[in-house]
Amino acid sequence: VTLQRPFEALLPRVYELRDLSGVVQVLTWDQETYLPKKAMAARGAQLTTLQGLYHERLVDPRLGDLLESASAERTLGEDERALLREVKRERDRAVKIPERLVRALADAQTEGLSAWRQAREENRFARMAPALTHLLLLRREEADACAVSPERYDALLDRFEPGMNVARLGPILKRLADRLVPAVQKIADRGPPQKEPWEERSFDVEKQWTFTLELLAAMGFDLEAGRQDRSIHPFTSASHSTDVRLTTRLDAAQPLSAFFSTLHEGGHGLYEQGFDAVLARTPLAQGASMGLHESQSRLWENQVGRSRAFWQHFLPRLRGVFPEQLNGVDVDGFYRAINRVQPSLIRTEADEVTYNLHIILRFELEVSLLRGTLRVEDLPEAWNDGMQRLLGVRPSTDVEGVLQDIHWSYGEFGYFPTYTLGNLYSASLFMAARKAMPRCVEDISRGQLSPLLSFLRQNIHRHGMRTTAEERVQAVTGKGLTDEDFVTYLREKFGELYGLEL
Amino acid sequence: VTLQRPFEALLPRVYELRDLSGVVQVLTWDQETYLPKKAMAARGAQLTTLQGLYHERLVDPRLGDLLESASAERTLGEDERALLREVKRERDRAVKIPERLVRALADAQTEGLSAWRQAREENRFARMAPALTHLLLLRREEADACAVSPERYDALLDRFEPGMNVARLGPILKRLADRLVPAVQKIADRGPPQKEPWEERSFDVEKQWTFTLELLAAMGFDLEAGRQDRSIHPFTSASHSTDVRLTTRLDAAQPLSAFFSTLHEGGHGLYEQGFDAVLARTPLAQGASMGLHESQSRLWENQVGRSRAFWQHFLPRLRGVFPEQLNGVDVDGFYRAINRVQPSLIRTEADEVTYNLHIILRFELEVSLLRGTLRVEDLPEAWNDGMQRLLGVRPSTDVEGVLQDIHWSYGEFGYFPTYTLGNLYSASLFMAARKAMPRCVEDISRGQLSPLLSFLRQNIHRHGMRTTAEERVQAVTGKGLTDEDFVTYLREKFGELYGLEL
Repeated sequence: VTLQRPFEALLPRVYELRDLSGVVQVLTWDQETYLPKKAMAARGAQLTTLQGLYHERLVDPRLGDLLESASAERTLGEDERALLREVKRERDRAVKIPERLVRALADAQTEGLSAWRQAREENRFARMAPALTHLLLLRREEADACAVSPERYDALLDRFEPGMNVARLGPILKRLADRLVPAVQKIADRGPPQKEPWEERSFDVEKQWTFTLELLAAMGFDLEAGRQDRSIHPFTSASHSTDVRLTTRLDAAQPLSAFFSTLHEGGHGLYEQGFDAVLARTPLAQGASMGLHESQSRLWENQVGRSRAFWQHFLPRLRGVFPEQLNGVDVDGFYRAINRVQPSLIRTEADEVTYNLHIILRFELEVSLLRGTLRVEDLPEAWNDGMQRLLGVRPSTDVEGVLQDIHWSYGEFGYFPTYTLGNLYSASLFMAARKAMPRCVEDISRGQLSPLLSFLRQNIHRHGMRTTAEERVQAVTGKGLTDEDFVTYLREKFGELYGLEL
Repeated sequence: VTLQRPFEALLPRVYELRDLSGVVQVLTWDQETYLPKKAMAARGAQLTTLQGLYHERLVDPRLGDLLESASAERTLGEDERALLREVKRERDRAVKIPERLVRALADAQTEGLSAWRQAREENRFARMAPALTHLLLLRREEADACAVSPERYDALLDRFEPGMNVARLGPILKRLADRLVPAVQKIADRGPPQKEPWEERSFDVEKQWTFTLELLAAMGFDLEAGRQDRSIHPFTSASHSTDVRLTTRLDAAQPLSAFFSTLHEGGHGLYEQGFDAVLARTPLAQGASMGLHESQSRLWENQVGRSRAFWQHFLPRLRGVFPEQLNGVDVDGFYRAINRVQPSLIRTEADEVTYNLHIILRFELEVSLLRGTLRVEDLPEAWNDGMQRLLGVRPSTDVEGVLQDIHWSYGEFGYFPTYTLGNLYSASLFMAARKAMPRCVEDISRGQLSPLLSFLRQNIHRHGMRTTAEERVQAVTGKGLTDEDFVTYLREKFGELYGLEL
């Protein structure tokens, strides 16, 4: 008779939880792609049932016992310790947050979303202020229940970026803003950019589709362990590293939207496909954080996809697909068109230089809201002042300002910074890749993307959630989170593009 | 304070179970349509986890207590009593079958499927005989554990056709065979049928697809509460009456396959879309039996879709889609082509007249196997003798004979008769529809299918599993299960087609 190790007795419970969350991924993917219109309510009930079962199994005292026994083992391997850490982290949080608060939050989210839609229709923030105040109250309560530090915001940030906190992140974002604001000002002084004639033309969506599949193949995305579909808002949904589903958006008037969406989601998808097989069906088979996940999408979308080298190879191919529309367009002109900089009001339309200022604004406001130093009623004014200060533009209505994002309407505080973390990490990682592989950019200019993928596989993807994001980046770059590499990247790229000292 | 009725306390458990089985439906649909190739193993694990949870919740003693309390209520409505009956029926069976047997069956099914594939490759039944013997042993054990009657087969049949048994079904199938055998003989004496030239032409699959969607729309299938996709083997999968998914098969060389598959699956789909909304998320929101389900698919495929009236309206439309391929083809010629009769070796290729003889053979053999009066080793010989006796043809190899169907390879005994029950019920129900609506066939000949759908909605679909299949049919036709209507239908239709007294 072989005695089962306590750790092994725990595993079926871990697999079960992971399978359940994988199923939730498939169902939400289905909801955004193929679900019949009238089935929304039925799907909602199915998801609620699955999430209820998941929560019930997660807080089950028997799981607590199994975790305790397994943790007491003396001979645990490194992956085993990491696995225990992650299961405990998730379980502790679920146990600490009272059932009553979970239900109140779910109700407040529904109410908040509906108030946000109404407020946008009326273009009047005051319409959603009461719902937002209520959500904020509940999130404060949640933060206090988890209490990872005296800074309330940390408990919310920790959900998306384990190990990160305001004390570490705040100063970095502050310095980033100090460097970006004058750079943006210098570029804005050049006056508004002009569109090229080809950008006004129509691009057949079926041909766009074929080209996006070519991009995915070139990136090394395995279409036998994943797929691409169409949806209104592009997203990535993975139920397992062999089942990674991306979507892209097709619009005849905006072909660039499809290409960059595919590169972006493809970057997320490569991370999901790259976890070591030994981590499958455990919480270690996921990105180390939302920020590190975003670093992978941004790396492919921006560091690679908005580079001159990339289009040296792919523009001739794209011209082959759209010979009439792109007649006479050369790499320099195309490169300039996909890298235009202009301070604007809407985050999702922002370029690489201005984007992070939108995030920094949101981060500052969120921290103040959580601290209680900013009142919800004063949010629109604080928003507009911040836009003026950071970007030099001022929204004239709430829809162009504080009402533009969906996140706060369902109480999602702490998520926004992960976008900027993604940008910062992506610059550091791509710089490390170029250092490790001097021919990296030359390879890209010949459409050879597999050396870069191998570098990311080896250094980022395969490790999943074994360590925090910053520990992983530190292991690759030697320096953890920094704005230096990103600022260097921007100064070189846009300094050259605009003939300016940024 | 309002006291909750015990029945209401039970409902969340019922909803949860139904949601879980709905999720399994979506995942199996996904598996056959969009699942990436390499994700088969991960999906298998997810399904096993869900099915394990389902079983655990079903046999949970707390559910037993809730059922008992609810059943003791004095003021239960009719639907409530039916719901209790169905939950208990399913739970009792699950409780009676020991966990050990469930696991042994699952293993034996895997083994059986693999042995069947191997046996087909070698064209040698003996290769799968041991696995089949083992499966049979386990199914006997299962039947004895449930013990619905002294006839072992009844316990297996009951899974698919609640309330039906050998004592009732056997004599009806016997009489049906007695009537079909000479009819088939008379038609066979006319010699082998000839294919028309148009049947050798190629039909663009995209145009076939468009035409199948037109058929679904004409039937009244709601494409906002369901969808159609492509797969190798057509099937219907419903997770809720607002989410009913069909597939069809597209093959340029066999357009009829797509059209009749769509009509067939569309018939299943209409049943699933038609349950009273009040039954949603309960086991009453499903077909009363597999046989009654099959009656709906057969009614649309054969009674309607292989009628002259139907093609009076739809052939001109089909000619509009395929003007070159169908040039000069008239309704009479087309009607004859889709109703050719010929005794053949393979069930799935059989016509309406010979089809049920294939089923009767399987039913006889299954009952004998369960009774122990037929040994597995003697199955090929018994099969071939039966084919000779019933259809006048004799397989020369096992692949053309006893190895042709997948069902037995995973121990699915008791399912085959539901195909014939579907054919018998479909004839009785269509006859009742024509009697209730004298203009029914005329409506069909003008493409007006909605009166027929209303009749089925009102008399069959909406009731779901409130009663047994036969009780429901009895309520509509006044006579329950009979072969009379089906035989009358065949004699009229094929007597006219072949100019014979059948």
